[in-house]
Amino acid sequence: MEANEKQALVNRLRRAEGQVRGLEQMVETERSAKEILTQLAATREALKKVGLAILEEEMRNFEAAGEKGDQASVEALMGLVRQITKG
Amino acid sequence: MEANEKQALVNRLRRAEGQVRGLEQMVETERSAKEILTQLAATREALKKVGLAILEEEMRNFEAAGEKGDQASVEALMGLVRQITKG
Amino acid sequence: MEANEKQALVNRLRRAEGQVRGLEQMVETERSAKEILTQLAATREALKKVGLAILEEEMRNFEAAGEKGDQASVEALMGLVRQITKG
Amino acid sequence: MEANEKQALVNRLRRAEGQVRGLEQMVETERSAKEILTQLAATREALKKVGLAILEEEMRNFEAAGEKGDQASVEALMGLVRQITKG
Repeated sequence: MEANEKQALVNRLRRAEGQVRGLEQMVETERSAKEILTQLAATREALKKVGLAILEEEMRNFEAAGEKGDQASVEALMGLVRQITKG
Repeated sequence: MEANEKQALVNRLRRAEGQVRGLEQMVETERSAKEILTQLAATREALKKVGLAILEEEMRNFEAAGEKGDQASVEALMGLVRQITKG
Repeated sequence: MEANEKQALVNRLRRAEGQVRGLEQMVETERSAKEILTQLAATREALKKVGLAILEEEMRNFEAAGEKGDQASVEALMGLVRQITKG
Repeated sequence: MEANEKQALVNRLRRAEGQVRGLEQMVETERSAKEILTQLAATREALKKVGLAILEEEMRNFEAAGEKGDQASVEALMGLVRQITKG
């Protein structure tokens, strides 16, 4: 992974971490269930996008290494896709 | 919300926050995409369970307040359910 | 369940059945993966909405029967919500 | 798409169509919400698996055509993945 791409992923995760800390405060200050669940859905969505970015990065890596296109790489990528559709 | 229930939710969110910090380290130390996406799915699942716990708490609140059962409470609860099925 | 609500659910399911038949034709006539997956997401979304309508109906039933609000009904409803967030 | 792969996808969709018809009967005969939602989750899961099979097929097609690995193919595949994570 290139340094700038790694940093971009870490930055996104730090923002997600901040969103989870925001959720803790919302629970502590007894904000409404509706507000908390809206923020929770946004946090889960942000994490899903990190997963999609990692998958995209992985597709490009296979490509750069010339590995992409063989049977093993298709199965590895499909394993990642299945992981993303969970959770 | 009772104090012990609030604390239980905050504790769960702190564990989820720790999971996100774990993800940051996994990216920084270049763990495999498969490992990262497995941990990411677990984190998203943990957050979804927090959402379900908040919904359950809300159902009990309506009950305790004797509000549950009227048209407005059904619609409010359905709004929360829709929020949980997103994200 | 009232007769008109039952009919509304059956009608929605018939439309979803028609969407699945449409998917069969799209595969047979080799439409693009993008078009097929767009239609498939719409079909899955339509089925999810049927699930939400059944849950809402169930909340109103508990209410009408005066059962809503007790511990057992909260747990039964939460079981349905968990089922909807799967699949 | 090869003829046998196309047939396998159509067969899966026919089974999903049968599952939706089963849901119509379950609603008509007033089976419990729990039973209906369990069958509904299974149907949605079956459709998701059809989507994953189409994506996998598409990855192999890019490969066979030697297109896989360029920027455009990564973006096209990611578009399909996003579609699958919806709905």
